[in-house]
Amino acid sequence: MSKLLIVGTVAFDAIETPFGKTDKILGGAGTYIALAAEKFGIDSAIVSVVGNDFPDKYFNILKDRNVNLEGLEIVKDGKTFFWSGRYHNDMNTRDTLDTQLNVLADFQPKVPESYKNAEVVMLGNLHPLIQLSVIEQIENPKLIALDTMNFWMDNTLEDLKTVIEKVDVITINDEEARQLSGEYSLVKAARKIQEIGPKYVVIKKGEHGALLFHENEMFFAPALPLEEVFDPTGAGDTFAGGFSGYLAKTGDYSFKNMKNAIIYGSNLASFCVEKFGTERMLDLTDEEIEKRLKVFKSLTQFKIDLTQ
Amino acid sequence: MSKLLIVGTVAFDAIETPFGKTDKILGGAGTYIALAAEKFGIDSAIVSVVGNDFPDKYFNILKDRNVNLEGLEIVKDGKTFFWSGRYHNDMNTRDTLDTQLNVLADFQPKVPESYKNAEVVMLGNLHPLIQLSVIEQIENPKLIALDTMNFWMDNTLEDLKTVIEKVDVITINDEEARQLSGEYSLVKAARKIQEIGPKYVVIKKGEHGALLFHENEMFFAPALPLEEVFDPTGAGDTFAGGFSGYLAKTGDYSFKNMKNAIIYGSNLASFCVEKFGTERMLDLTDEEIEKRLKVFKSLTQFKIDLTQ
Repeated sequence: MSKLLIVGTVAFDAIETPFGKTDKILGGAGTYIALAAEKFGIDSAIVSVVGNDFPDKYFNILKDRNVNLEGLEIVKDGKTFFWSGRYHNDMNTRDTLDTQLNVLADFQPKVPESYKNAEVVMLGNLHPLIQLSVIEQIENPKLIALDTMNFWMDNTLEDLKTVIEKVDVITINDEEARQLSGEYSLVKAARKIQEIGPKYVVIKKGEHGALLFHENEMFFAPALPLEEVFDPTGAGDTFAGGFSGYLAKTGDYSFKNMKNAIIYGSNLASFCVEKFGTERMLDLTDEEIEKRLKVFKSLTQFKIDLTQ
Repeated sequence: MSKLLIVGTVAFDAIETPFGKTDKILGGAGTYIALAAEKFGIDSAIVSVVGNDFPDKYFNILKDRNVNLEGLEIVKDGKTFFWSGRYHNDMNTRDTLDTQLNVLADFQPKVPESYKNAEVVMLGNLHPLIQLSVIEQIENPKLIALDTMNFWMDNTLEDLKTVIEKVDVITINDEEARQLSGEYSLVKAARKIQEIGPKYVVIKKGEHGALLFHENEMFFAPALPLEEVFDPTGAGDTFAGGFSGYLAKTGDYSFKNMKNAIIYGSNLASFCVEKFGTERMLDLTDEEIEKRLKVFKSLTQFKIDLTQ
């Protein structure tokens, strides 16, 4: 079993969907990644920053699940990062109503001593220079995974390329893969992105699943078709947490095992959307995860005998 | 092995893509279905209509592949159905430049005597009353599959519902499934559509793959991510031909075998797009089909041991 270092926002979200609305609830990429990864019973730490308005009950959610919080800085005279969004009727597209960086604006990540030897690093979606500074504090990582988005491609492309060169896995969506590579075909896009650095390219397609590329090989994991999508917030980060948590647990970074990691990511993400915010991830049991894994198996596995 | 009866247009297409342009070439839903289905070495017949401008070389393409043409009516003083379209740079969306129904306008399908006992019927996308009239000429079908599109939902909804009640499988895309059912969730959409009649609902998502629903079960087959999509024309009908051809070959209409049929449909469709029109389907070999089946296996199959 390997240690997992997580970097990502710990935040307040205020979410509106056609089904309902919340005030400030626990959110943030780092939070979702951690809550998913801890399902694998690994040692993980989160490097992030909050303000003095971050309540004990939220710290306890992470502490109770054994997430090391030495790297979670509390800024005494600052306010926690806040995001507010509204989902459209299709529960897919959303508008950002408000983003208040608050303490995130001056965030300088400090990896705790005990995690400088982390084997697996999951760099949640943040400014590439923040992601880079974390890489520079890790002694001998076995696998570095990076999530990013088009915002950083639009505004900090050179910094982004600098950090992408140094990672093993990149996770982005299909539009971002096309933007970053200049290619329309996802096969060609992944190949171009591999040339920049990452041996593994994960292209997330939301409700259309996720593609994994490595050298000339490909793997596809569907997103589970659902009756109800209650709140999609955090699904992508839950995917990242399931993916990196599984890899940290197994310590196997081969393509074969990476496929399983993608399946676990998709599996956990399918639960996240069942309730508001992080709620479903808090009471999700191993039994439920396994039961749904069987659904993923029957969703994708087939038996055709080949003559050759 | 079962006999397959195919109903669908036999046509001229004029296609424009960013890569090139054709004048009138062989096309039509019925043509693509037949060319895919014949890969399974089954007995198939096509019921359709052409004008006196349909050249011998095109008849021979079908004859050489053992497609029974007794039901392919030739209207002596008429012109063959013509469609012209232009694909956008994304090779996904297209504009219809011209549609000339010609002899299709008065088409009254006549199933040949020798095929009134066909076990499998593949009703390509046509006016629902034409599809219905074919069903009424078949004595004892084991499996009737129907393809349709939003045009018929917009213009002939009651007729469409009448024919849908009588089929076993419906194939439509995700937008059409939502329109027909009034549901956004594809799981709920499929359930509602099953209530109208078909035990099996296939929801085609183009480059995002295809979903198969039956009772409370689901199966998903990806579309193969490709380096080049040269011409998408006929991909959906090739899918239908692979699907129905495989089912006719195996005579097994269980959910388990239907999954394999979906995989074969997706497999053959991935070849169709490699060249203009029907070109790739004409020289496609069994070896190539099997080789690509291995790609589909490695694209989707994974091994996670479950403790329960």
